[in-house]
Order: sequence, then structure tokens, then C-alpha cells
Amino acid sequence: METSLARIKKDIGTIQKFTSTPGQGCTRFSYSIEDKKAKNYLIDEMISLGMDVKIDGVGNLRGTYKGQCENLPIILVGSHMDTVKHGGSFDGITGVIAALEVIRVLKENNINTKHTIGLIGFAEEEGSNFGATTLGSKVITGKIASSELKNIKNFEGKSYYEVLEESGLNPENIDKERLDKKDILGMLELHIEQSIVLDKNNLSIGIVKGIAGTRTYGVEIIGESNHAGATPMNMRKDALIAASEIISHVNDIVKENGLSTTVATVGKIECHPNVSNVIAEKVGFTIDIRDLDDYAMDRVLKEVINYSNRISDKYELKCNIRQITSFKGTKTCEKINNIIEDIVKSRGYSYCKMLSGAVHDSAVMAEITDVGMIFVPSKDGKSHVPEEYTSFEDIKRGSDVLLETLLKLDKI
Amino acid sequence: METSLARIKKDIGTIQKFTSTPGQGCTRFSYSIEDKKAKNYLIDEMISLGMDVKIDGVGNLRGTYKGQCENLPIILVGSHMDTVKHGGSFDGITGVIAALEVIRVLKENNINTKHTIGLIGFAEEEGSNFGATTLGSKVITGKIASSELKNIKNFEGKSYYEVLEESGLNPENIDKERLDKKDILGMLELHIEQSIVLDKNNLSIGIVKGIAGTRTYGVEIIGESNHAGATPMNMRKDALIAASEIISHVNDIVKENGLSTTVATVGKIECHPNVSNVIAEKVGFTIDIRDLDDYAMDRVLKEVINYSNRISDKYELKCNIRQITSFKGTKTCEKINNIIEDIVKSRGYSYCKMLSGAVHDSAVMAEITDVGMIFVPSKDGKSHVPEEYTSFEDIKRGSDVLLETLLKLDKI
Repeated sequence: METSLARIKKDIGTIQKFTSTPGQGCTRFSYSIEDKKAKNYLIDEMISLGMDVKIDGVGNLRGTYKGQCENLPIILVGSHMDTVKHGGSFDGITGVIAALEVIRVLKENNINTKHTIGLIGFAEEEGSNFGATTLGSKVITGKIASSELKNIKNFEGKSYYEVLEESGLNPENIDKERLDKKDILGMLELHIEQSIVLDKNNLSIGIVKGIAGTRTYGVEIIGESNHAGATPMNMRKDALIAASEIISHVNDIVKENGLSTTVATVGKIECHPNVSNVIAEKVGFTIDIRDLDDYAMDRVLKEVINYSNRISDKYELKCNIRQITSFKGTKTCEKINNIIEDIVKSRGYSYCKMLSGAVHDSAVMAEITDVGMIFVPSKDGKSHVPEEYTSFEDIKRGSDVLLETLLKLDKI
Repeated sequence: METSLARIKKDIGTIQKFTSTPGQGCTRFSYSIEDKKAKNYLIDEMISLGMDVKIDGVGNLRGTYKGQCENLPIILVGSHMDTVKHGGSFDGITGVIAALEVIRVLKENNINTKHTIGLIGFAEEEGSNFGATTLGSKVITGKIASSELKNIKNFEGKSYYEVLEESGLNPENIDKERLDKKDILGMLELHIEQSIVLDKNNLSIGIVKGIAGTRTYGVEIIGESNHAGATPMNMRKDALIAASEIISHVNDIVKENGLSTTVATVGKIECHPNVSNVIAEKVGFTIDIRDLDDYAMDRVLKEVINYSNRISDKYELKCNIRQITSFKGTKTCEKINNIIEDIVKSRGYSYCKMLSGAVHDSAVMAEITDVGMIFVPSKDGKSHVPEEYTSFEDIKRGSDVLLETLLKLDKI
């Protein structure tokens, strides 16, 4: 009994075409027309397996494959549906398709699990619409109340609540659609690694011991706009010079204050008025800090804040710093990890136990249930870019491990 | 005989309303609807003074007030019509209005000059559409041929030629509409200082000895995009870290390689894909270097290039550097400067002789004729920003000096 490489390949091949940036990677934001098309494809497949399917008030795709004992807690399996801008064809969706394929194999082998299997395709994991990650899982685990959705705004200033309503969803339902701790046995997520560890070491499977936490902050430096030719160097309040001094120091701050696992990134910068012959008045940038160790993240964050204030003071500029997201590091379930390790060993797959530097919905789910995560290799470690690639052989191996893990969990 | 503060105030008040960003400073790009409205207002005023008026193929507003001897070369007076994005209400247009007011005073006093007076309102001085400055004056002095207009592109990739045609102008005419050296006696330009020297020292008039040259270059750093959480710090090719290291070093480069008059500015930065959780793949920024001394500019430029390459090599990134504009430093006409100084002294106005850090059309005009420039104070040195301000008393004083200078030139 095994998953089908051909079916997985067809699914991924179909869904990667639902992109708003053809030829420039996959861009499939939650609540977009491409997202709807991808969901419609999956819904048709799920219905043909006899599953019950719905899209909840926050846009998560949720299907159930009925088990023998409807009173037992369900086993969830899945990942997220959305991508970043100009992202790849594998991040997120691979785990949703692996879950679908696992249920297909159960169906074709007439395997009737004790527990009901819940397939989940999370919405809005990447933060592409609202700048904050894993919103779909946060809402259905109750971390975010439906009333808060009116305060979360996208880059056009539209609230999450409005976006959901305009997309034809019913955010009012969310409070009734929450996942309850007592109704879930555990959650399994297969995901691409998004880093270079597996690929560099020629390993097939990563067993995720923990998921790094994140601190994402926005730094805004406010100086004074003025003519670039006519303002002497010593009379400037140049926001871009100060911002650059801070950004260029981030690597050193991590080295001096973080652990070997700590990473920090400035990926986004906006300059105003952004004209070649005008001194920059205002520069905003984000800083994204990650580690499993909360103290390491906090030390780096503290020094970023200190340093930003110090440099701003030096140039007599204003500096505003605000939190965008904050996520604790999360450990996965040791019992599930041991099950996965036994399976991987008995199959003779090369593997390692590792941390995830990227955030996942499983980190949110871990607050209400036991989670297990299986990583498959990312070629050259590339992710969130059009070149992102995982071989279908690797995805099949991961899916087979997922299937066997689910069956073992079902027998507990 | 003097210029009228009330009329100047009315003209500036009228034209500042022609902005595409009401409430956020003056944005009046050449070839925009606001530019057309401003020109129509001035054309009506000029026609009422009996002037011949036309808009040439590149969009320069050109009027003539006939003198006694049509065979004598003309005296040009004026400045530019366009603004930067979110600029002020005084930069450029003040010199055009001062020229109009001077002709009004000649008319109401029935003064018939020997030489014909040519009023000029240059188009596209700021580089707002095409990223290169003083295009209007470069075209009519023959520095840019009409055929080259097809190769100059705006930020949407549209050629200058197409923009002119779409704006209802006839770029084919340009070659016939050029200003010829032998037909011009000299050019006078009144302009706001755009720096703090006059305001800080409580001076009314600046006599411009020279106009700083400019070197504007575009630097592009190309690294590798990747997941911000999952890529270890030592395996990154982060274009924004490298760009920041270069930008933050610009002040030191100027200090070590320039003169006390040298300035350099990075005012524009673009990051791709510019997402908080993705390592920057590509960062482009501009560097604008200015001085009267070409050698000082070249030393700074050389070191910016060296340093950019050094930092890019350090992080194993690609670095492309291209010239956007290059302008030599220009001296104004000493004879005209002496005339202005005599007038200012006899009127008892406080003044100084100074350099202009900003580029002006007069620097282009200096290649074909004698030029004189009169600066009036900018409050707090502010320019290219909504708060840009020059008092109407100061503009009137400058306009009176302009009028008297023109009359003295006419008698030569």
C-alpha cells in the first residue's frame, strides 16, 4: 500500500497553474480568484472520495473522511493553501495534496480507520494579505476572536472582516466553527523544508523537533526631506543613511546576541519620497527574528531596538518601532516523532531530526493538540521564490511516511 | 519703477493650485494636465502684454516681447515650470513669474528695450518623468537631438518622443526651434536658493558664481532570494545587507574624498521582492554627487564604485553600476555678476556671492550664452518639499534686481 507519484504530480501540476503572476512564480493569495480555483479543484477530488467538505468563515478548506467511531477525536492532516508573492509551487500546497493522497489510498484500499480523518487546507498562513502569518489557524484555534478581525487591516486599509465578506465567506460563523481540543487526537503536517539541510546532506526526510518562534517588528525612521544638491552634508537629517546604518549592523547584532540557530532578516524597505535628488524624509523597514529559543530572540530584538534608537539619536531623527507579530518557539510531540522515526528507519530512508526555521500552522495547532511535522527536501534550499523545487520522488516518500504515521496514530 | 508684490503673489497663488497632489505639496510634472493649466494661465497673461507666445516641440513655454531692433540678439529671462513629486510652490515657477512681472513693468512704463526680451519657461528640468534633469534646456540648446528622444524612456518604458506626441506636441519641430548662440545676448534666471545659506545669514540676494556639476549613478546589487526563517545567516546572499553597508558609508566617502562643498545623496531605493519574510534578491539605489569641482566629484564617484564592488565581492553578490546623468560644474558670467552686484549694492540689499549646489537650466544655457543667476532665500533652506517657502518681499526684491539687470544688459 503506497501513495501514487503520478497522482501527486498531477495535483501539484494542476494547482501551480492557479497563479496571478504566470511566468513569474506562484502567487496565490488567500481570498483571490486563484485561491478559489485551487480550492474548487480539491473540493471536487474530496467529494469523489466521499468526504464531507466545507470552507469555514475564515477560508480554511476543511474535509472529513468518516472513521468507524464518530465519538473518537479526529486526526487532522494538511497544511496551508496560500503562497507569498512570486513564490513557488510546493510551499504549503504539497502538504495539502499529500493529505488528499493519503485519503485516496485509504479509500482505494477500503481501509476504515477508527478515527475520522480531517483534511485541512489553512488560509492566510504566509501573511501576504495582512502582514501577519498563520491567521487561518489562529482563528480556528481561538487565538484570534471573530471580533478582532475588524481591527486587522490589509495594505489598502481594508479590514480582514470586510475582505472575508467580500470574498463570499461568513466571518460571523467562525466562533461556532472553532476546533476544540477535546475533539482532536493530533495533527500531522508534511511540508517542504525551505532550507538547505536535507538537500546538502542528501537526506530524504526531516523529522521536525521544533518550530522556531518569530518576532517581526516594523522600524520607522523619520528625518527631513530636502534638496540633495543644495543641502550641506553636515546639515542633513537623512532617514536613509540612518536606516542603512541599522540594517547593515543586523548581522553583527545576531552574531553577538543570538545563538547559532538565530536568524534575522530585513526583507522589506520603503523610502519616502524615494526620489534621486531629494534627501529621504522617512524610511520604514521590517525586521524578522527567528529561533526556537525565546531568550535568544528577545536579546537580538532588544539590541535591534537599542541600536535603532542610538543611530536615530546620533542623527537627531525620530524612530518608531512597533510589533507586527510575536510567536513563541514550539516543540512538536515526542511520541509522534518517535513513531515517525521508527517508520523512516524501517523503510531505510535517510533522515535527520531538525528544527524548522520557518513558522508553520503546526506551531499554532500545537497549542491545542499533539503535532508531528515531516519535512521533504527543498532543492538548493530555495523557497518563497519561483525556483522552489522538491522532487516528486521525495514528496512520495514523505507521503508514504505520512500515511503510515496516520495509520499508527489511528491504532493508539 | 518697480515690480508689484501683489501681482507676483497672485501669480504664484494661482499656479500653486495646479497640483496633482492637493494638500501634499505641489506636483506639477511636465506634460501633465496641471502643467497645461499653468501654461494656459501664463499664456493669457503674456498675450495681454502683446507678446508672441508658443510652446515648442519639447514643451518649453517661449514668449517674445519685441524690442526696437529686431536684428539684435535677444535677452532671455526665465526658469523652469515643473516640480518634483510633493515639491513646493516656489522652485522654478518663481523665476518664470519674475520674468513675466519684469515684462509687465516694461509694458506699463512704456519702456521699449533695444533688444527683444525672450521669456522662457523650461520643461522637464527636475527629471521627474525621465530620471534625467534639464531635458527641456538640453534639447533646445542642441545637446540632445530630436532623434535621441526615442531612446529616453520614462519609468513605464514609454519614450520621451511618444510622451511628447501624446501630449499634443510636435517633437519633429525641435531641430528647427533650437536656440542659436548668435541670436542670444545672455540669459538671466531668478531662482530660490534651495539651501540655508541666505536664510541663516539673513541675506536677501545670492549672486551665483557657479553651478555645481552632478554625477548621478544607479547601483544594482543582485543576490539570492530565499526564506527568511529557514536560511542560516552564513548561507545568505542578502542584497539589502550589502546595499545598506554601501549607503551607510557614503558620508565617510564624501568626507575622505570630496571637498567641503561636495555633497552626495542616496535618495531612492528599490528592493525586490520587498517582503518581510523573504531575503532580498535585488536592491537598486541611486547616488547623486555634486560639486563645482569635477575632480572632487570624480574622486567620490570612483570610491563609491570601488566600495560597492568591494562589498558585493565580500558577500559574493553581483554589482551593476550605470551612469544616469553627468554634468560638469559651470561658471556664470563675471560681467553679468558684476552688474548684479553693483545694482544690489546701490539698492543697499544684503547679499553674498555663492555656489549653487542644485543644477539649473542656466548651467545648460551657459554652453551657448552668458548667464547670470539671482538667488532669493529659502526659509530654513527647505526645497523639493511641501514646506518650501520664500517670502514675497524677497521675491519682489529679487525681481527688482532682475528688472534692473535686464535694463543694464539691454544698454550694452
